[in-house]
Amino acid sequence: MEIINHTLNVKTKGSGDLIDITEQISGLLHKSKLTKGNVTIFNIGSTAAITTFEFEPGMIKDMQELYEKLVPSDRHYHHDDTWGDANGFSHLRAALQGPSLTIPFEKGALMLGTWQQVVLAEFDNRPRQRKIVVQLIGE
Amino acid sequence: MEIINHTLNVKTKGSGDLIDITEQISGLLHKSKLTKGNVTIFNIGSTAAITTFEFEPGMIKDMQELYEKLVPSDRHYHHDDTWGDANGFSHLRAALQGPSLTIPFEKGALMLGTWQQVVLAEFDNRPRQRKIVVQLIGE
Amino acid sequence: MEIINHTLNVKTKGSGDLIDITEQISGLLHKSKLTKGNVTIFNIGSTAAITTFEFEPGMIKDMQELYEKLVPSDRHYHHDDTWGDANGFSHLRAALQGPSLTIPFEKGALMLGTWQQVVLAEFDNRPRQRKIVVQLIGE
Repeated sequence: MEIINHTLNVKTKGSGDLIDITEQISGLLHKSKLTKGNVTIFNIGSTAAITTFEFEPGMIKDMQELYEKLVPSDRHYHHDDTWGDANGFSHLRAALQGPSLTIPFEKGALMLGTWQQVVLAEFDNRPRQRKIVVQLIGE
Repeated sequence: MEIINHTLNVKTKGSGDLIDITEQISGLLHKSKLTKGNVTIFNIGSTAAITTFEFEPGMIKDMQELYEKLVPSDRHYHHDDTWGDANGFSHLRAALQGPSLTIPFEKGALMLGTWQQVVLAEFDNRPRQRKIVVQLIGE
Repeated sequence: MEIINHTLNVKTKGSGDLIDITEQISGLLHKSKLTKGNVTIFNIGSTAAITTFEFEPGMIKDMQELYEKLVPSDRHYHHDDTWGDANGFSHLRAALQGPSLTIPFEKGALMLGTWQQVVLAEFDNRPRQRKIVVQLIGE
């Protein structure tokens, strides 16, 4: 059994930017030569999250509207008073969605559905350079 | 340390069907003879999710009402235009709740609370044959 | 590769109590001498959850208000009829937020952001003595 840590560097455009990182994760799995195990994807930081969905334009728009409905960006949050950077909504969305995901793999392939992609959800109100841990454990 | 992958096949009745899969997972753990480690439960696909709650009729009804409140099923979503299958709400609920869960075990038993069951939440608008990965890692 | 299970005992004050448990987890990691791997944090029970956010007073207040908005505490839930203990909202919040989290570590340190803490979210309507599993897997 082996543990391999990688860090993906992903440039984002700020709030509402949803980025499909499935291929990058599959690429790292392929390079590792591991065949059975799991990969943990973890976003370092408090204003982005990781989830899975079918990555197509309609769904992307729906997700953006859902986040906006659950945690509106146009109101004032207590956190905004702490740093004066007006991204309280970003922190709340990230905490609700969660920073990590663990996906099993078998025969060297991620056990995802055909229409199920791994997505980095950027919530911050400005472009960011994200560091995403991709940790493979397996044999 | 060993890695054992299983796939549960679970028949569901469509949207709102919440299914207790704890016993099936415990059964696989028991069969594995592993005593210490964890199990990752992962739903393959974009319209169902995994969580834990106390599996009793009142709570089941409450969860159905919560999902309906957060992501109503009676409105039109952009995703519905993509495939014309009217299950945009199913995709959104699944992405919000998340596809996976990791549960530690010790002395051959899942470290769950007495009133804490592992639940497959079906969100799709039609009956489905689900494939749930149950991955045991341990010794 | 080693697996080490710990259980944290955490006293909470009831609904809305958000507790930073990062240092306790880091302490267990340090004591283990493991340098590369991951830690799974799992709340045993159905009325608390685990997430990450920037642990500062404004954000704490925002999170409390978000949970209250998504799942109000001042209404009646079906679950309340089952046991007569009026904490239906606690169960719903816990199921939505999720009981567990997996965080990679490297060079003996958790791969968290500087402003990203691991938080136990107590949702129950009375003080509790929580048992949180901290499971280290690594080398």
